[in-house]
Amino acid sequence: MGELAQAYAAVRQRSLRIAAPLSSEDCCAQSMPDASPVKWHLAHTTWFFETFLLEPHEPGFQPHHPAFRVLFNSYYNGIGDKHPRPRRGLLTRPSLDEVRAYRADVDRRMEALLGGQPGQALASLMVLGLQHEQQHQELMLTDLKHLLAQNPMYPAYTPEALDPAAPAPALEFIEFDGGLAEIGYNGRGFCFDNELPRHREYVAPFALASRLVTNGEYLEFIESGGYRDPSLWLAEGWDRVCAGEILQPLYWLEEGGAWREFTLHGVQPLDLARPVTHVSLYEADAYARWRKSRLPTEAEWEFAARQAALSGGSLHPEGADGEGLQQMFGACWQWTSSSYAPYPGYAPAAGAIGEYNGKFMVNQYVLRGSSCATPDGHARPSYRNFFPAGARWQFTGIRLAR
Amino acid sequence: MGELAQAYAAVRQRSLRIAAPLSSEDCCAQSMPDASPVKWHLAHTTWFFETFLLEPHEPGFQPHHPAFRVLFNSYYNGIGDKHPRPRRGLLTRPSLDEVRAYRADVDRRMEALLGGQPGQALASLMVLGLQHEQQHQELMLTDLKHLLAQNPMYPAYTPEALDPAAPAPALEFIEFDGGLAEIGYNGRGFCFDNELPRHREYVAPFALASRLVTNGEYLEFIESGGYRDPSLWLAEGWDRVCAGEILQPLYWLEEGGAWREFTLHGVQPLDLARPVTHVSLYEADAYARWRKSRLPTEAEWEFAARQAALSGGSLHPEGADGEGLQQMFGACWQWTSSSYAPYPGYAPAAGAIGEYNGKFMVNQYVLRGSSCATPDGHARPSYRNFFPAGARWQFTGIRLAR
Amino acid sequence: MGELAQAYAAVRQRSLRIAAPLSSEDCCAQSMPDASPVKWHLAHTTWFFETFLLEPHEPGFQPHHPAFRVLFNSYYNGIGDKHPRPRRGLLTRPSLDEVRAYRADVDRRMEALLGGQPGQALASLMVLGLQHEQQHQELMLTDLKHLLAQNPMYPAYTPEALDPAAPAPALEFIEFDGGLAEIGYNGRGFCFDNELPRHREYVAPFALASRLVTNGEYLEFIESGGYRDPSLWLAEGWDRVCAGEILQPLYWLEEGGAWREFTLHGVQPLDLARPVTHVSLYEADAYARWRKSRLPTEAEWEFAARQAALSGGSLHPEGADGEGLQQMFGACWQWTSSSYAPYPGYAPAAGAIGEYNGKFMVNQYVLRGSSCATPDGHARPSYRNFFPAGARWQFTGIRLAR
Amino acid sequence: MGELAQAYAAVRQRSLRIAAPLSSEDCCAQSMPDASPVKWHLAHTTWFFETFLLEPHEPGFQPHHPAFRVLFNSYYNGIGDKHPRPRRGLLTRPSLDEVRAYRADVDRRMEALLGGQPGQALASLMVLGLQHEQQHQELMLTDLKHLLAQNPMYPAYTPEALDPAAPAPALEFIEFDGGLAEIGYNGRGFCFDNELPRHREYVAPFALASRLVTNGEYLEFIESGGYRDPSLWLAEGWDRVCAGEILQPLYWLEEGGAWREFTLHGVQPLDLARPVTHVSLYEADAYARWRKSRLPTEAEWEFAARQAALSGGSLHPEGADGEGLQQMFGACWQWTSSSYAPYPGYAPAAGAIGEYNGKFMVNQYVLRGSSCATPDGHARPSYRNFFPAGARWQFTGIRLAR
Repeated sequence: MGELAQAYAAVRQRSLRIAAPLSSEDCCAQSMPDASPVKWHLAHTTWFFETFLLEPHEPGFQPHHPAFRVLFNSYYNGIGDKHPRPRRGLLTRPSLDEVRAYRADVDRRMEALLGGQPGQALASLMVLGLQHEQQHQELMLTDLKHLLAQNPMYPAYTPEALDPAAPAPALEFIEFDGGLAEIGYNGRGFCFDNELPRHREYVAPFALASRLVTNGEYLEFIESGGYRDPSLWLAEGWDRVCAGEILQPLYWLEEGGAWREFTLHGVQPLDLARPVTHVSLYEADAYARWRKSRLPTEAEWEFAARQAALSGGSLHPEGADGEGLQQMFGACWQWTSSSYAPYPGYAPAAGAIGEYNGKFMVNQYVLRGSSCATPDGHARPSYRNFFPAGARWQFTGIRLAR
Repeated sequence: MGELAQAYAAVRQRSLRIAAPLSSEDCCAQSMPDASPVKWHLAHTTWFFETFLLEPHEPGFQPHHPAFRVLFNSYYNGIGDKHPRPRRGLLTRPSLDEVRAYRADVDRRMEALLGGQPGQALASLMVLGLQHEQQHQELMLTDLKHLLAQNPMYPAYTPEALDPAAPAPALEFIEFDGGLAEIGYNGRGFCFDNELPRHREYVAPFALASRLVTNGEYLEFIESGGYRDPSLWLAEGWDRVCAGEILQPLYWLEEGGAWREFTLHGVQPLDLARPVTHVSLYEADAYARWRKSRLPTEAEWEFAARQAALSGGSLHPEGADGEGLQQMFGACWQWTSSSYAPYPGYAPAAGAIGEYNGKFMVNQYVLRGSSCATPDGHARPSYRNFFPAGARWQFTGIRLAR
Repeated sequence: MGELAQAYAAVRQRSLRIAAPLSSEDCCAQSMPDASPVKWHLAHTTWFFETFLLEPHEPGFQPHHPAFRVLFNSYYNGIGDKHPRPRRGLLTRPSLDEVRAYRADVDRRMEALLGGQPGQALASLMVLGLQHEQQHQELMLTDLKHLLAQNPMYPAYTPEALDPAAPAPALEFIEFDGGLAEIGYNGRGFCFDNELPRHREYVAPFALASRLVTNGEYLEFIESGGYRDPSLWLAEGWDRVCAGEILQPLYWLEEGGAWREFTLHGVQPLDLARPVTHVSLYEADAYARWRKSRLPTEAEWEFAARQAALSGGSLHPEGADGEGLQQMFGACWQWTSSSYAPYPGYAPAAGAIGEYNGKFMVNQYVLRGSSCATPDGHARPSYRNFFPAGARWQFTGIRLAR
Repeated sequence: MGELAQAYAAVRQRSLRIAAPLSSEDCCAQSMPDASPVKWHLAHTTWFFETFLLEPHEPGFQPHHPAFRVLFNSYYNGIGDKHPRPRRGLLTRPSLDEVRAYRADVDRRMEALLGGQPGQALASLMVLGLQHEQQHQELMLTDLKHLLAQNPMYPAYTPEALDPAAPAPALEFIEFDGGLAEIGYNGRGFCFDNELPRHREYVAPFALASRLVTNGEYLEFIESGGYRDPSLWLAEGWDRVCAGEILQPLYWLEEGGAWREFTLHGVQPLDLARPVTHVSLYEADAYARWRKSRLPTEAEWEFAARQAALSGGSLHPEGADGEGLQQMFGACWQWTSSSYAPYPGYAPAAGAIGEYNGKFMVNQYVLRGSSCATPDGHARPSYRNFFPAGARWQFTGIRLAR
């Protein structure tokens, strides 16, 4: 079995492993339009392979089910109609078992395609499909977490305990000289089109916090009245605070002055040493202002990240525990002050696949790094994640800059 | 086993039989705030027995699960907090299996209570609980139908075929003298509090259509431009037509001039001889005006219904096939022009159980008769069903009057 | 000048007198979709005469301005397009002066028509136009009051003082025998089509409160927790209470435990002896339940009203001060428990004018009597006013029944 | 009279001149939450001087009217409460005359302050107040235009004719070398804080269109199906197209294939040689993509603008008529692809005045240049205007880049 076939098998199995502890009910429900059911993720990632690989490349291609082309199309206008996003949770059919059978059928056919010595273009597309599925693996966990949080019983995803983190090291600001820097991917492996082209940007001297902001530090912000002082907030953020939409990090729970946090391990006492997570850009920005700091630009972040260690692979962000620049990867995605925009000379691919990234480059902000829920091997310094400023259901955190 | 215990067992088993062909996914999803998941119905009807019978009457009562008191409270403020209605579909836990276990536990305990020679008050409450569950049995079918209709694959609930109905007999108007009539229940069996007190109303002479309006007759209305002529419509109804919310009966499908209808038997050719169903009061009223008729008042309907035959028990309304006053029961609920209001001297029961009917007596309209989905034994001439004028997901139909 | 011409002149002048203390800005703004600008009322009442009288009956009719047919059409689909109701306040053109000129032009032409010995049909239509304008005169005051109340400076419409009312006489319940009653108009003067046909209704024995509920009595309801007890409320009303939409009568103001009320005379101390006004049906119903009473049906009200004295003509409801049945007219419109429905045999007029009343007969409730803002000569025992259950900007009050 | 006093008098008088042709009704109405009434602009600009200059600096300061502090506060949380923005059009009081008296009173007091040899800080604040009023002068025209456009009679602001423009010169792309550029204001006059600090940015070589896109060119885009092809649009823009919110430039009117445009001169035939205006960023971006171009970044625009000529001062954008880089100023604001973000090291002023710009730096896009409605002397190459991507009621246009 070739390397690509091995990668294919590994990634595809991991999706099923994420779903394994869940009932078919858990996999079907949708808690908000932004979040999709686990079953839908399992089907859509399969649809991606069926539509972009099998359909053009498999001899005598027949769709697994003719309705799936529409049901599991996320947003590709070039492919055609789409089942409306806010109604994904109403698809009780096909059942979870039928979706598993869909996966098995496509896997079998993909393995045949892979066995046939795919050319460069096909191999690239296959890698894209795997990277795509890894992105959805992270969403499976964050979307599921959001769903479970709607249940007043706050069920846990995993029975495993969550141990207290060691006290966080002091937060220090590490200085960087900046200069005329090369930004964007320049390796020989895979990257998304939004990481290209590599280009020059001038980066003024700056300093970056050595670690993420902790729950303990964020709690000080709350207790000192951070959510009651409009001078700390962007106007849009303050509007949301006043509307009662943003009052504390998304999954924090307060009762009689005691703080707890809903996690994939269930409700836990708030661990002051772990990084604060599930905050919006508005909160990250307000916290930074309160701390007389600011959020980094994405260029600053990437400039600093080149020597950072990759890590990850848990269900809740771990605390910092080393020296130098820590938690650049594997704990929380880090809000930057950079809006999501094309790099100079950016050109999306031709055809429907070109809708992957480019058409979303407005009114979103770049997050850098990776989170505890990001699959191993999926992160790199040039990676650009992006969400609207108000999004909180991802594992988002705060890295300060000055 | 006493009569009541037999009735208890029969009603409770029927709910499970309704759910039997469905997957746990089918039972969990919620298609709109007005419709509840089948699983929720199974749990809520059980909650009714647990809360209103076991809790006050079982020695050493312990709740099956402390969270269920809130999760499965529909609208009883007197009981306390309620899980928000539009979020019932997000309760993937408890699972369908756990809800079945909840039912079994409560059934076991109820049977013990029943075996202990319940007094009159308790027996009355038990009958109310069974009548309540029968109401939810009809809702299980209509709510499920609405859910399945959201799926572009239009899955059928039952694999059984739906045979074409025989041609409908001519629609005739049967004359009634009216006079000072007694309205309301006066039998010795069960009735809901909203059917009481029996009281006098003056009913002017009137005529009632011998059968329900058929699909064929309604199609004529559509084809003659009924949905394009504001002079036929109540202002609120016309607003909905203009907003595109009401364009044809809820489950009708048109493609290239051919009409089909989604039913619990799947998508079927429109059967012109069966009664039109899933129409709002607005549509019923507009149709009647087009036909130079009107809808009956509830007093007229009840006046006429006293000799009508009870029937029912299918998954789609049957056609008319006899003489005289037909389809008063067992095909479609029939919109009346009467708003849902208390009878003179009406008094709800004390306590939370008094919230059953009285607090809904505003901005709803009375429907009379029963539908194909109404359980056997649940209908009677004095029965008052009620829904907002725009509701269409019940098996609602049109009985004309003059 | 004939009687009709005199009536025409008197009614038309009164509209201008209502607008006289107002600036053109006051006359242009619209505070909510339900309320219209004074200028719009001045124009629409003129449009009514132009469209329904001049257009069909004036030789060589030419419209005053071709755009006005759409701009000032309220809701007559039979006439054609309508400027959208929520956007009436954006019509800064035509100016108030131009609308006054429009009135003068139509008045001149109407006087010519009136001088020509109009036949019975035309005379009836003219009376309808005047009654229509009187209805809008009341709306001019209530809509303006709503607009002024949006201004944090709470400007007064009139500089006149509002004297304290004498203490209210004790509230007594007056008994009525009921029986088979004739309901509906049967005089020889004008009535609206919704008061016809006169017909028989059976009215069970009942008792009616001798006067309206006072501010003082309603304040007791508030202070005893009336707005915090769901058992007193219709479910829809309680939803609005919980949503913060209904917390006290519409124009009541509380500061440090002291209650004031915004009136057309400006903000005044709450006069405990005057009737409570600007309450919804939900509040009237909840108050009645708290008082172990109920709201009357419209038949009961009309049955009792036949000997009641007509009075009215102020800018705020006066207190009760006599014996027997008081305040049936001239203080506040009185919510009934009757939904607005056609009388048996009701038939609207042919053509667009038939849209006047009939198409609104759904989801509204009947109010009986008249208010301080109702023009003299406009009220009668059979008069049926109607508003949605949540409407509060009219001079609505509470008459209890048992 | 000093230079500053002269400037004060000139700017203040110009606001009144803009309002002069309007009735008090025209000045009072508000067509949407984003647009304010002319009267409100006249009052708010006066409030700015009263609050930020007179209150701290006038000996024995007394407010003109105590309620105005809240009524005319736009968004300064540091000052206190604000009348809700969407309800500005309901303020029929104070009247337009009272607002003129407010202006006269503040002007008199400001002139006294100006006569007293203001120090540097006070003078700076005064200049800020004048620049602020100039910004509102542009808004008075664009907000008024939006209001007039809601009236189906499409009234003109000015009776002056709008002559056809000369044919537009060919659109050429002018090449720029780019390099490490200094961006931001570095003159000795006034600039807003968002133009600072001047800083270095690397600008790659680029080309900029010699003039704005014309109506004629944009019409080709429409006629070739530009609004029907999702591949041209950002996803958010396409959603708006599908929702029917964006179908053609805001004030374009089509009837029977003939295109006209509503302007402050009334409805005019679409002038193919004038620049297209009142387009959103979504439309600008889609047009650029169709033209195989892109929008410039703000750094590119500023880099190119340094030699451009300033011009302006009309009520509708003029056509291009010269050589080289034209219409950088005085025709239409030009959408850039740059989100509105702080320059490196940006720090807003202390206190409430610091809310002027900084708190809006999220989810908005920078527009560069100036428009026909921008007051003379208000534009400069470093000026940063900003609006949400969907805003269309400003004089926005399209400058292409490559």
